[in-house]
Amino acid sequence: MTKSAAPFGVIMAGGRGTRFWPLSTSAKPKQFLDLLPGGTMLQLTADRLAEVCGRDNIIVVAGREHGDLVLEQMPWLDAENLLLEPVGRNTAPCIGWAASVLAERGHGDSTMLVMASDHRIHPVEEFVRTARVAVLAADDGYLVTMGITPGHPATGYGYLEKGAEVSKGVFRVKSFREKPDPDTARRFLEAGSYLWNSGMFVWRVSGILKALAEHMPVLLEGLSGIGGCIRPDRDTFGALPAVSVDVGVMEKADNVVVVPASFQWSDIGDWPGARDAGVSRGETIVVDSENTLVYDATGRLTVIMGLKNVSVVCTDTATLVMADSCAQKLREVSERIRISEC
Amino acid sequence: MTKSAAPFGVIMAGGRGTRFWPLSTSAKPKQFLDLLPGGTMLQLTADRLAEVCGRDNIIVVAGREHGDLVLEQMPWLDAENLLLEPVGRNTAPCIGWAASVLAERGHGDSTMLVMASDHRIHPVEEFVRTARVAVLAADDGYLVTMGITPGHPATGYGYLEKGAEVSKGVFRVKSFREKPDPDTARRFLEAGSYLWNSGMFVWRVSGILKALAEHMPVLLEGLSGIGGCIRPDRDTFGALPAVSVDVGVMEKADNVVVVPASFQWSDIGDWPGARDAGVSRGETIVVDSENTLVYDATGRLTVIMGLKNVSVVCTDTATLVMADSCAQKLREVSERIRISEC
Repeated sequence: MTKSAAPFGVIMAGGRGTRFWPLSTSAKPKQFLDLLPGGTMLQLTADRLAEVCGRDNIIVVAGREHGDLVLEQMPWLDAENLLLEPVGRNTAPCIGWAASVLAERGHGDSTMLVMASDHRIHPVEEFVRTARVAVLAADDGYLVTMGITPGHPATGYGYLEKGAEVSKGVFRVKSFREKPDPDTARRFLEAGSYLWNSGMFVWRVSGILKALAEHMPVLLEGLSGIGGCIRPDRDTFGALPAVSVDVGVMEKADNVVVVPASFQWSDIGDWPGARDAGVSRGETIVVDSENTLVYDATGRLTVIMGLKNVSVVCTDTATLVMADSCAQKLREVSERIRISEC
Repeated sequence: MTKSAAPFGVIMAGGRGTRFWPLSTSAKPKQFLDLLPGGTMLQLTADRLAEVCGRDNIIVVAGREHGDLVLEQMPWLDAENLLLEPVGRNTAPCIGWAASVLAERGHGDSTMLVMASDHRIHPVEEFVRTARVAVLAADDGYLVTMGITPGHPATGYGYLEKGAEVSKGVFRVKSFREKPDPDTARRFLEAGSYLWNSGMFVWRVSGILKALAEHMPVLLEGLSGIGGCIRPDRDTFGALPAVSVDVGVMEKADNVVVVPASFQWSDIGDWPGARDAGVSRGETIVVDSENTLVYDATGRLTVIMGLKNVSVVCTDTATLVMADSCAQKLREVSERIRISEC
């Protein structure tokens, strides 16, 4: 098998962002926020991916309402590499569509890396190293997922069980596991053979399309009605089955492998996760407190006294003070606020 | 003894306000804030006192830097009834000075009610009723303090022990007690004969001056150098002994009586105290939380999730999130902030 041309990078930037209220809103979800030094989550993702693909080979899939925001944050992005979803339909339609567009453009033999737009990855050099191993495995015909060595018994991530090594740093996936309960998560961590399922994938364009033909023929049929179009209408796109690529393809295909990542990773899924990733903004005085996050977007002083495991987030329109234990509830509360504001 | 003319009301408004940071600042201490419905603490105090004295008989003693603020909030106050301290020297100099000024103006035989400017008192009708009883006792030559029936074993107030009834609703004071430890406070509450020392006094002008001559001759000597002047210089006023009237006079004099108040009272000494007094501002969503206070002076939405016994205060320049247990520390923290801003 000949070595392929430079791979393509597909950034999934369709998230609606309700877990970072009040900083994130439907107008500006998490991927467009500058939570970390160096740029917005999207910019950091694009810059990192450009180290592997080059900027010209980057494709962004985003919500239609965020098209301008993407081009504002990635002014170098060719407009034809911006795919706008009229409605969110989970990852399988998003990925299948991007693959179809690449195939239409004559890149069926190329590999594509698929990345979320809002994860923290560090350092970039290790990401590049892991990605290159994954690209080689994709060249060999595998559907590759990047796995993260668990740092703690997380219950918020799916896991996958590592099987036999098929080539250096590349392992069969024995099984996929849903988000575990705390006991199971501890068992996974102790076993040493389980990795977090990061939702980052690498495969050949033709490889994922073939897998979709086999495991999700209805999706592929729907995608054929879109063809190479990068601005599909709501009815056509909305009719695609809303299934994740994990459930729709990865858990079914038999050529799935995992490349354990050598980088640090976090999906920064909520405010406590943001704290663990070092997110912080604004002048702060903390007295008799532990494990607090302050993010003040307004430039005011924040004083925290006598609190533990609490996030304080201030914007021009709202203040959130939230115990870690309520982080999962924030989505619901912020959606209620959004509805009441309409 | 003939019935005296309408009494005078003296409002002590010299507080510097560090316990309500960030809402209170040295430029705008607690007495000038509108924490409660109906006006600022000073306005509520003045309106209440006017029910007993009439507006024309009200004297305000405030810090020199707050003179304009007093006149802004009490536009009806005659400027010659505004006494401006160049520096704070505790209550005995403040009260002695106001009494001297009244005596110079020919009101030595009048009674004077002395009030803090930042206490919550409710309802006004009961205040008026208690004040009238106290004025009658003052007419009889007593130094009168208003006592509050304890609602809980507070450790933040001084107490006084009620003795024999000398006339209807007027009791000898057997002893003054410092702020007690929790066990002692519980004992005081159970005994039923102890009252909170509210720091509100009623006496004849000549009566308090006589008591000062006996128990604080150095103060009276110093005051004679000020005479009827309402804008003394810093050196003269600053040389007066900084002693409270409780320690300097009330604990020593033998003609001290207490009138138990029939109104509800709180000194709203800190943010948790403000919560207990019903203070609150701004649109708020509270989820899985108990016993929280929100005061947002900026008109933004505040969301509190999963917290107990916490105050959240937002202004244009700062956000405070404080556990009740740290309320006593706020003074120190806010003073540190003030210094660092100089």
